[in-house]
Amino acid sequence: MAPKVKLIYFDSWGAGEPIRYLLAYGNIEYEDYRVLVEDWPKVKTSMPFGQIPVLEWDEKVLYQSTSICRFLAKKMGLAGDDDWEAQEVDALADTIADLKQAINEYGWYCSRAERPIKKQKLIKETLPFILSRFEKRIGENNGYLANGKLSYADFIIAGSTEYFSATMGFDITDGYPKLKALVDKVHKFPQIKAWVEKRPKNVYAFKMDD
Amino acid sequence: MAPKVKLIYFDSWGAGEPIRYLLAYGNIEYEDYRVLVEDWPKVKTSMPFGQIPVLEWDEKVLYQSTSICRFLAKKMGLAGDDDWEAQEVDALADTIADLKQAINEYGWYCSRAERPIKKQKLIKETLPFILSRFEKRIGENNGYLANGKLSYADFIIAGSTEYFSATMGFDITDGYPKLKALVDKVHKFPQIKAWVEKRPKNVYAFKMDD
Ligand SMILES: N[C@@H](CCC(=O)N[C@@H](CS)C(=O)NCC(=O)O)C(=O)O
Ligand SMILES: N[C@@H](CCC(=O)N[C@@H](CS)C(=O)NCC(=O)O)C(=O)O
Repeated sequence: MAPKVKLIYFDSWGAGEPIRYLLAYGNIEYEDYRVLVEDWPKVKTSMPFGQIPVLEWDEKVLYQSTSICRFLAKKMGLAGDDDWEAQEVDALADTIADLKQAINEYGWYCSRAERPIKKQKLIKETLPFILSRFEKRIGENNGYLANGKLSYADFIIAGSTEYFSATMGFDITDGYPKLKALVDKVHKFPQIKAWVEKRPKNVYAFKMDD
Repeated sequence: MAPKVKLIYFDSWGAGEPIRYLLAYGNIEYEDYRVLVEDWPKVKTSMPFGQIPVLEWDEKVLYQSTSICRFLAKKMGLAGDDDWEAQEVDALADTIADLKQAINEYGWYCSRAERPIKKQKLIKETLPFILSRFEKRIGENNGYLANGKLSYADFIIAGSTEYFSATMGFDITDGYPKLKALVDKVHKFPQIKAWVEKRPKNVYAFKMDD
């Protein structure tokens, strides 16, 4: 019997969209539940550690987006075929999480006064430092981030790029043709293409108001 | 033949100490290489993503502290016995990483002016929110964080508590007797006891100067 699956996240991309990509790729039917911002304080207390995304899978409650992605990836053979490969994929996923954290610090968590400094640091240091290393790895790994083949790290980067770009205000893959090609490749999988076509538009992409 | 293992980190606890705990617990011999702060700019460029801890294991170069812990844990049966258990351990490890991030924001990354606000938020919101949930889980899991048995998440929390407490300026396990008991239990393993006795003292624990 198919499992009863429900993703709980905001009506946005953020940490939820890579999970949606993997669910789509694995043809897993699920309820795409989007918490209204005004309902969040009430919902928050019932989440395992007060945050989302949370994935309900039958009676189990999964949390932490990267862990959820890894769990789904194992079902699809996308988490590495041995402990060495798994470590490489996991480390890349954590590196993308660090990048997301840095971008969120700018886009969400810092004061308006700090924003220009955070933005400059991202543009001049953090983004080129990390993205050039992704670019190099993709060049050495057959067009993928890790182990010369598709993994859940590729879905995380592909499912995060739009969000990162929306927050930064420019396409972060510009100047990184191999990264761009990888993101495009993931978007050409029929299941991802279908998801991107049918997913809600006008989501709450970022809060920048200046 | 025993692998040639080298941990590269600063002369501090931070993200390195949980790895040192797991290496000690697994009786894995390794070089505990501590980069001098003045050498860091030079070393940084040769690290996979410009950060440490990094673990060299024969010719392989592992990075991202949580991924390194998971890799080591798999060798010791501490990463969960099936995909459900693994997800639970991984999610807790990521939750501790989020807590570390919040504590580091206060202890390292924010301006002096912001510190009192960050500290209050940690003391009034973040710490009680997360630690009370750890406490509850430990109560439901036979004295451990996950799955009713020892896992690498227990080593991460035990190997992080001193660092968290040093940064906050008080013992963060105060008021959480089950958490305190878990941390004590890990420190009573003979290998961990031996490591804590012999490890370098006076490490660079935190930068707080006020
Ligand atoms: N490390 C966590 C971070 C989760 C997180 O930051 N969630 C945010 C939304 S992206 C949230 O729940 N915010 C509301 C709140 O903290 O009250 C993950 O990757 O799942
Ligand atoms: N998510 C990474 C974070 C690593 C990290 O922040 N490393 C810090 C020390 S704790 C570092 O290398 N700082 C020096 C730098 O970034 O130049 C991990 O858990 O390994």
